[in-house]
Amino acid sequence: MEPNRGIFLCFYLMASGNWVKLEKTTYVDPAGNTRTWETVKRTTRQNNTEADGVGIIGVLKRTLHKDCMVMVKQFRPPLGCCTLEFPAGLIDEGETAEAAALRELKEETGYKGEVVGVTPVTCLDPGLSNCTTQIVLVNINGDDVENIHPTQELGEDRRFVSRPRRR
Amino acid sequence: MEPNRGIFLCFYLMASGNWVKLEKTTYVDPAGNTRTWETVKRTTRQNNTEADGVGIIGVLKRTLHKDCMVMVKQFRPPLGCCTLEFPAGLIDEGETAEAAALRELKEETGYKGEVVGVTPVTCLDPGLSNCTTQIVLVNINGDDVENIHPTQELGEDRRFVSRPRRR
Repeated sequence: MEPNRGIFLCFYLMASGNWVKLEKTTYVDPAGNTRTWETVKRTTRQNNTEADGVGIIGVLKRTLHKDCMVMVKQFRPPLGCCTLEFPAGLIDEGETAEAAALRELKEETGYKGEVVGVTPVTCLDPGLSNCTTQIVLVNINGDDVENIHPTQELGEDRRFVSRPRRR
Repeated sequence: MEPNRGIFLCFYLMASGNWVKLEKTTYVDPAGNTRTWETVKRTTRQNNTEADGVGIIGVLKRTLHKDCMVMVKQFRPPLGCCTLEFPAGLIDEGETAEAAALRELKEETGYKGEVVGVTPVTCLDPGLSNCTTQIVLVNINGDDVENIHPTQELGEDRRFVSRPRRR
């Protein structure tokens, strides 16, 4: 993402909930035209970070097994169905992307991981929202005693699923 | 995405604009708990499709050149900055994902392409919105006379950028 090249004239708050708000923005685009845009923002973004959340690409490594990608199956109210996703979650106050990734991975799958890479901040749906994420690459030592019988920490309707990783 | 496993009790419309609306949903989750969720939906989804839009992975192929990925640099009001993205856009009434992809690619980059693959419908930010997309894989014959001097059809602040493709 590059620096701002538009001029914002006003932000009209159309509605705000506990987690999400909808704004109508009036701005002058880089070509000099005055336009409006309807923008969604999370109300939960922390001050210490540019990203709302993290997505976690977790690779489960076990002796004598193929590496597996760890994914989460869960009910998603906005879609009204279950999805199969990489583990993900919002960054808490004072938390780094790396710490958020390890916390969310532990909560959602029970696995303890080790961060091996983090992407820059990227957007999720830039025509709709200002929501951003960082993708965190995590290795999971499946031979570690803590990872032999992983237990989810949240009582929500989520199950983790592992899929063989293509080389 | 799998079939619905929650029961929806009511949808309260918090605000609706020309393109986007914000709803508060009350539902019974698969574990039997009554919960609420704030959901964003586009008002523009067409009846004939489950996807709101398409993203286009376009590969520019030219004799004696490395293949390039075609991307678009544009100002995005929700983010207040320029982004570098794969070409993308909403599906129009009566349009297939393939047709939308070729139209958007032509509008945003000037290139005429050929569809070589389409993914199933996938979600963009499933904790926030019901917005969905299909990724369309497109080959662009850069030797074709129509693709020698591609011209964007929209007068917006967009430029296309090509990047060498890693093999």
